[in-house]
Amino acid sequence: MIPFDGSLKIGVLGGGQLGQMMIQEAIGYNFYFKVMDPDASAPCSIIANEFIQGDLKNHKDVLSFAQDCDVITIEIEKVNTQALKELQKQGKKVFPQPEVIEMIQDKGTQKEFYQHHHIPTAPFEICKNLAEVKSKNWAFPFVQKLRKDGYDGKGVHIIRSQADLEKGFDAPCLIERMVDFEKEISVIVARNSDGECKTFPAVEMEFHPEANLVEFQINPARISDFIALKAENIAIKIAEELNLVGLLAVELFLSADGELLVNELAPRPHNSGHQSIEGNITSQFEQHLRAILNLPLGNTDILKPAVMINLLGSEGYTGAAHYENINEAFAESGVYVHLYGKKETRPFRKMGHISIVKDSIEAAIETAQKLKQTLKVISK
Amino acid sequence: MIPFDGSLKIGVLGGGQLGQMMIQEAIGYNFYFKVMDPDASAPCSIIANEFIQGDLKNHKDVLSFAQDCDVITIEIEKVNTQALKELQKQGKKVFPQPEVIEMIQDKGTQKEFYQHHHIPTAPFEICKNLAEVKSKNWAFPFVQKLRKDGYDGKGVHIIRSQADLEKGFDAPCLIERMVDFEKEISVIVARNSDGECKTFPAVEMEFHPEANLVEFQINPARISDFIALKAENIAIKIAEELNLVGLLAVELFLSADGELLVNELAPRPHNSGHQSIEGNITSQFEQHLRAILNLPLGNTDILKPAVMINLLGSEGYTGAAHYENINEAFAESGVYVHLYGKKETRPFRKMGHISIVKDSIEAAIETAQKLKQTLKVISK
Repeated sequence: MIPFDGSLKIGVLGGGQLGQMMIQEAIGYNFYFKVMDPDASAPCSIIANEFIQGDLKNHKDVLSFAQDCDVITIEIEKVNTQALKELQKQGKKVFPQPEVIEMIQDKGTQKEFYQHHHIPTAPFEICKNLAEVKSKNWAFPFVQKLRKDGYDGKGVHIIRSQADLEKGFDAPCLIERMVDFEKEISVIVARNSDGECKTFPAVEMEFHPEANLVEFQINPARISDFIALKAENIAIKIAEELNLVGLLAVELFLSADGELLVNELAPRPHNSGHQSIEGNITSQFEQHLRAILNLPLGNTDILKPAVMINLLGSEGYTGAAHYENINEAFAESGVYVHLYGKKETRPFRKMGHISIVKDSIEAAIETAQKLKQTLKVISK
Repeated sequence: MIPFDGSLKIGVLGGGQLGQMMIQEAIGYNFYFKVMDPDASAPCSIIANEFIQGDLKNHKDVLSFAQDCDVITIEIEKVNTQALKELQKQGKKVFPQPEVIEMIQDKGTQKEFYQHHHIPTAPFEICKNLAEVKSKNWAFPFVQKLRKDGYDGKGVHIIRSQADLEKGFDAPCLIERMVDFEKEISVIVARNSDGECKTFPAVEMEFHPEANLVEFQINPARISDFIALKAENIAIKIAEELNLVGLLAVELFLSADGELLVNELAPRPHNSGHQSIEGNITSQFEQHLRAILNLPLGNTDILKPAVMINLLGSEGYTGAAHYENINEAFAESGVYVHLYGKKETRPFRKMGHISIVKDSIEAAIETAQKLKQTLKVISK
């Protein structure tokens, strides 16, 4: 039984906006949140019950951070999994499990996992270095991805020519067939220790062409019920094969002929679930906590259609953040502003997001487009 | 223009659950919340950016607390209004205005305000002491109310007999005709400095017969559109006559023959608005902040019907709080748990609330009744 008397200590590795929103959702649960992040002014530094500055990849830092925690979780997957395994051996609850995080940290083992479990994904080969990539003699175009430490489009290189190939990463990587997709969708799935497993309805992501960051997200995805069910089944299969306890975002490509291919996984609350805070009965942050605490999972039904836009730092501005025309968001009905409290903006930095909840997808898209034109994160 | 860069300092007098939920709602706005409360372990003590222990009725405490604040507001009306007036003279924004708080602190001036502005309310007389009450020779039954410092049913005495009269308060008070009401409803109204004024749909309150605390609240109230409109018009009239900037809860009695009588006012987020967090497009806490910051007011439409139950400390238990069967709330769809983080329970203490949002009022009531039977706040 989970105590709600203030005595349950949840350790969160990472103190960014995902942790911030997780804590915000849970203020009424009377849990004690202890958070570690390398940045002393990380978004969680203010609202965590206890904030520790430390290196998430450092074995000792992670181990000592979590000594007095009952449950340990993450809001970023680049953490020291060896330390998490030791904590697990000490009898602590570590969710998602260190093995899951470890597998997902490496895009090579991720792809092998899909292959092994017959989960549809783009054809690939794993390479040790650039020389091996070249030796494969793949026809252009294809994609090269670093096995480790890529994020938000970094660590991904599109190879369309011999010149692109020469500029490839000379590091452990994988090469992957380019998928000619029509849409990119995401299904977030949660699973608790009792084995209860529940998906959120698929959302549709539109990417910024340059920054490779989601800038426009549509809930629910404009796909057929059949495709939606197929995508949900894939997400559930992955969660169950992993024996996951926690939340998992499954990003998928949908091809013009209705084929779904898993692109990548994130074992935590995810950018593609932000609109669930206001748009769904249960939010992804609440669901993450329910999953890791083995509470019954919440109903994920959509209340009303929603669109989410990321507030990215505008190009050409670096420095103290200023939110231009933000007041206009307040003038619109069903518009929810989330700023992450980051002091400094820089081009394409995720500074916040806005969810637009309306009676129809079309109305939400219209407002989103208007706000995208108006709102800017600049420096003065 | 309101800055969203972390520089806006909002001073909140009172650090209870109303402040806690106000700050929780606003975490994504990047404001700086400075809170004062006499209790060092008040609910806001953890999540406020800065928490000061101090006496809300003490002139010096209030004055020095607010010196570095840009906007000052309240989450409880028992505060030193002289200090607030001085702060206003210093050029600070104090909302609701000290004059409004002062008027509402005194149930006598509240009643005179209704009378002066032709706002319907139960017949009354103001008395200096018990002797004066007796001298009025009112027919039983009637109600005696202390002019000041009553709350949650305290300071209210029902006089049905000579014996009751002898036990009356010997202090400045008012006597009021007992209203034979069918329902008690509440309309929350917000008004900003631009004069924009917006009501929430009326909610219906069911009181605990002994504790005189709301234990069951229905959103929207089951009243006709005509009565709802009449109630909203009364709330707007009060806000405008007061030239209010902020949020005001207007509690009204509805008699069997459709007459509405104002019972009392609270110039702040109110227990009768808690279900707006999940049940309405904009919550009362968000609306309060929008009003005092002169942002456009949010749409108050109901998303889905909701019922709220207060989690009161069970009779017979005093001590460290334990939330019995709280897990059952998580097993129900559309149920939202809000605990206030109070360490100690005592009979009828407000320890939290639960909102139940469903497709129909009937479904929400059914779940609320079930949970009311099951959930208990006890001590072990």
